[in-house]
Amino acid sequence: MNKVIIEPLTAEAFSSFGNVVEAAGEPDYTINQGLCVRYHDRAKMDFGTGGRCGLSLFLGEPLTLPIKLEMVECHPEGSQAFIPIHQNPFLVIVAPSDANGLPGAPRAFLTSPGQCVNYYAGTWHGVLMPLHTPGLFAVVDRIGNTPNLKEHWFDEPFTVEA
Amino acid sequence: MNKVIIEPLTAEAFSSFGNVVEAAGEPDYTINQGLCVRYHDRAKMDFGTGGRCGLSLFLGEPLTLPIKLEMVECHPEGSQAFIPIHQNPFLVIVAPSDANGLPGAPRAFLTSPGQCVNYYAGTWHGVLMPLHTPGLFAVVDRIGNTPNLKEHWFDEPFTVEA
Repeated sequence: MNKVIIEPLTAEAFSSFGNVVEAAGEPDYTINQGLCVRYHDRAKMDFGTGGRCGLSLFLGEPLTLPIKLEMVECHPEGSQAFIPIHQNPFLVIVAPSDANGLPGAPRAFLTSPGQCVNYYAGTWHGVLMPLHTPGLFAVVDRIGNTPNLKEHWFDEPFTVEA
Repeated sequence: MNKVIIEPLTAEAFSSFGNVVEAAGEPDYTINQGLCVRYHDRAKMDFGTGGRCGLSLFLGEPLTLPIKLEMVECHPEGSQAFIPIHQNPFLVIVAPSDANGLPGAPRAFLTSPGQCVNYYAGTWHGVLMPLHTPGLFAVVDRIGNTPNLKEHWFDEPFTVEA
């Protein structure tokens, strides 16, 4: 099987797929009488035509490395943000779109504690992949009535490993 | 000083102030080949006229009980969701609006691990009050150019205690 080697997640490496939302660098504002800082408006939220913003929770089973990656999915009509409700790293898999709009070679990233991700609308990505219990995440994504899910199953699965 | 005794946070007790978003009860969907459940669209998101949804981070200094509560604030133009990026409890203070739109007697709630809150537009609430390090939260609220902050300073502060 083709291998995908896990990389550390950085905003730069992830920039063509979405936003890394993290308390890094200079905050934008200091609020609450100096007791709090705000990193302001750090993700490109997109809920498409006729969609609206929803807040949901995902609770997933932790996975164990190495992982067999058989498919990726995308949401053409909206962005999707994953906010870990914990301090554990999780796995983020994405793939570029080729000239036909199909996923190219996947990339795998491991988050650092405190990092959230927001997939741009249309970004091919793996399903939620926690590595620890609880696999609990808040998800901010499009609520709407039109189809917003594409799946792509690879002819040959990939192995994702450290 | 008048005392506010901290209550456990429940969806029912909080229902007139906002949503408690938590992985409780039956999930709405099972996804990812059975490996994940989705608690779907669990908050009343509101970004007002001319506003849009933003994803920000707040990093706050942990407080120590008892707390002196001198003020509350509200955002008349939009809801505001707080998602802890950790499993620690935090303090949530709210107050009902009286007939003049001013805050009545405050109430204080302590979250359980995994609970998020979403204040309805116009709900009087305290500032972010983590009790542990890291005081890191994702915030989903209105991004816009019109005023969206009211503050009310109490004539006499309250003491918030367990």
